[in-house]
Amino acid sequence: MTEPQSYYWDDLTVGWTYDFGPIEVDREEVLAFARRYDPQPFHLDDEAAAQTHFGRLAASGWHSCAMMMGAMVERWQQMPGWQDQSLGAMGIDELRWRRPVFPGDRLRGTCELIERIASRTRPEMGINKWRTTLINQNDEPVLSLVSIVMQKRRPPTSTADDEKY
Amino acid sequence: MTEPQSYYWDDLTVGWTYDFGPIEVDREEVLAFARRYDPQPFHLDDEAAAQTHFGRLAASGWHSCAMMMGAMVERWQQMPGWQDQSLGAMGIDELRWRRPVFPGDRLRGTCELIERIASRTRPEMGINKWRTTLINQNDEPVLSLVSIVMQKRRPPTSTADDEKY
Repeated sequence: MTEPQSYYWDDLTVGWTYDFGPIEVDREEVLAFARRYDPQPFHLDDEAAAQTHFGRLAASGWHSCAMMMGAMVERWQQMPGWQDQSLGAMGIDELRWRRPVFPGDRLRGTCELIERIASRTRPEMGINKWRTTLINQNDEPVLSLVSIVMQKRRPPTSTADDEKY
Repeated sequence: MTEPQSYYWDDLTVGWTYDFGPIEVDREEVLAFARRYDPQPFHLDDEAAAQTHFGRLAASGWHSCAMMMGAMVERWQQMPGWQDQSLGAMGIDELRWRRPVFPGDRLRGTCELIERIASRTRPEMGINKWRTTLINQNDEPVLSLVSIVMQKRRPPTSTADDEKY
């Protein structure tokens, strides 16, 4: 699918997809994130993790989300106008940690626009729902979610008035 | 509601609630998280944030989730047996960033068990759904979500056999 002519809500089409990544999962960073935000044994310690369903040291699920976000923001910086036209996410639905993420993994992601909703109360914006999926180096999905994002609408132009004359 | 006799799936009751926190939101940490995982201007820069709907520098939504997790894990460490009986979260539904989280905020949270589902395929575990809410120092909700958590079932005892004799 070709790139939209702008990233205003009006110019985005259901089905449009962009890729992001890669994300290299660094062991020291996995440990540092877990120590501060998710100090459970299977995120901190090889031996403890070996005795759990993860089988070995795995990243915190919230760390996977954070790494995903970092790679998405990097991608947006290559999309001129995106950062002006996106108003941020209201929330997330259907987040699923589908497989563990391990140090040494190399992840990449896709975002697909799955739904567009005009705002009844705020005519200057619309809502977009995006399905984001992260896969690992074996093409296995590790994380998926649906984000609910506010996006500016294309500002009214003077075209209508121009046509009168 | 009184504390359950164990944290096995069988011994938890819909409506049981526990509190966690407080979480002190540190400005330097907000900036460090954003630089690594969410480098958007409103998470990085006071002046840029002042021009957005946040009004001033706000924490990344993923940082709020990570801080929530850290405070929950700390709370679980005070609940003997919890860490053995919880098998981790499969995912999250209905995550909503309801208000910005600002440096200097003091947050606290509650987790309420809202649904219990026995597993048809894995008799050794059940599924619990918890509604987690974070509020700030003004009692305003800033974050809410529903987590889907796997929990061990109480192991079979020899009681049945004992009764034969």
